[in-house]
Amino acid sequence: MTERTGSRGRLIALEGVDGCGKSTQARLLGAQLGALYTFEPGDTELGAAVRALLLGPGPAPSARTEALLMAADRAQHVDELIEPALAGGQWVVTDRYSGSSFAYQAWGRRLGVAALAPVLEFATGGLAADLSILLEVPAALARERLGGSDPDRLEGQGPDFHARVAEGYRELARSDPDRWAVVDGTADIGAVAEAVAAAVEFRLGRPG
Amino acid sequence: MTERTGSRGRLIALEGVDGCGKSTQARLLGAQLGALYTFEPGDTELGAAVRALLLGPGPAPSARTEALLMAADRAQHVDELIEPALAGGQWVVTDRYSGSSFAYQAWGRRLGVAALAPVLEFATGGLAADLSILLEVPAALARERLGGSDPDRLEGQGPDFHARVAEGYRELARSDPDRWAVVDGTADIGAVAEAVAAAVEFRLGRPG
Repeated sequence: MTERTGSRGRLIALEGVDGCGKSTQARLLGAQLGALYTFEPGDTELGAAVRALLLGPGPAPSARTEALLMAADRAQHVDELIEPALAGGQWVVTDRYSGSSFAYQAWGRRLGVAALAPVLEFATGGLAADLSILLEVPAALARERLGGSDPDRLEGQGPDFHARVAEGYRELARSDPDRWAVVDGTADIGAVAEAVAAAVEFRLGRPG
Repeated sequence: MTERTGSRGRLIALEGVDGCGKSTQARLLGAQLGALYTFEPGDTELGAAVRALLLGPGPAPSARTEALLMAADRAQHVDELIEPALAGGQWVVTDRYSGSSFAYQAWGRRLGVAALAPVLEFATGGLAADLSILLEVPAALARERLGGSDPDRLEGQGPDFHARVAEGYRELARSDPDRWAVVDGTADIGAVAEAVAAAVEFRLGRPG
């Protein structure tokens, strides 16, 4: 982790449905940029405990509770990891950020973008990703990639839920093209990584 | 627990600093009204796990994370316990509600009322208490009453924090006199209970 001074770092979020390949791509991009790689939910000690409540086998949160627990994890993530890195001039690549809350809770859980927006504004202290990259893959391919693993509470939702999440992501990218890029996630890992890196360089340049 | 039909129940919140006597008074009022007695944080199974993150010995949440975890507990509390009771015509007496978030997080943690208000609106689905009762006691008496017990993360904050919480409560009550009543909490339990019951009957009448 190189400490850079002077200019502030950039925040890049990899987004998409479970099985789209964003965790792999976020790690590759982070390594390529010399950036801090992080993820949501659960990349702080407190966040890991929140993640267990969200996705583990315990009592199910209501839709609003789920959205607030995700927001709590994000607030801790911003305060403990993301903001200190950006302030120190480092770039940050996160596997999921506010786009996931809009797609999964506003669209998937039908809470609505307008209702959730002020909660996410509060959780992030107004810190938006400089670029969110949506990795698009058809639902069938995403399911196939998840194949072997036990689904968590969100992965285990039905196809209608996942169709709403995918539509939410497309709508987010369509409605804010300055802050979103869409990359075809169906190719092999190396080709997707090249497309992701190209999108980042075109939009944000390289770490200084 | 009597199931009442027809009219919707009323929500009454007991509020005040730790050691003001509100837990005792909330139980007494609940019994007197035949109401559902509940508390925050932690009166649902999920909420108990959230409470452990908030007040237990684990990693400390940031101020925004603390506010969002409190809001998550409240959302589950509303969805699982309060709203079903009110919809069934039952009255509900809760030991702490949104007033606590404003006093402890907006004032105590200095997050600000304007920033927190939309988060609480989301968490409650817009459900405000019909009446919040502030039990006022001087800081020295509240500390004396807490005397023997180990302080949790919030109780263990310094006197400046608790002074801001107390000022926040007074300001909430001053600024919304239709929804707040202030009761002197320094008298003996029976006398305070009578004053609380009188305030409820004057403002809301009795359960039908």
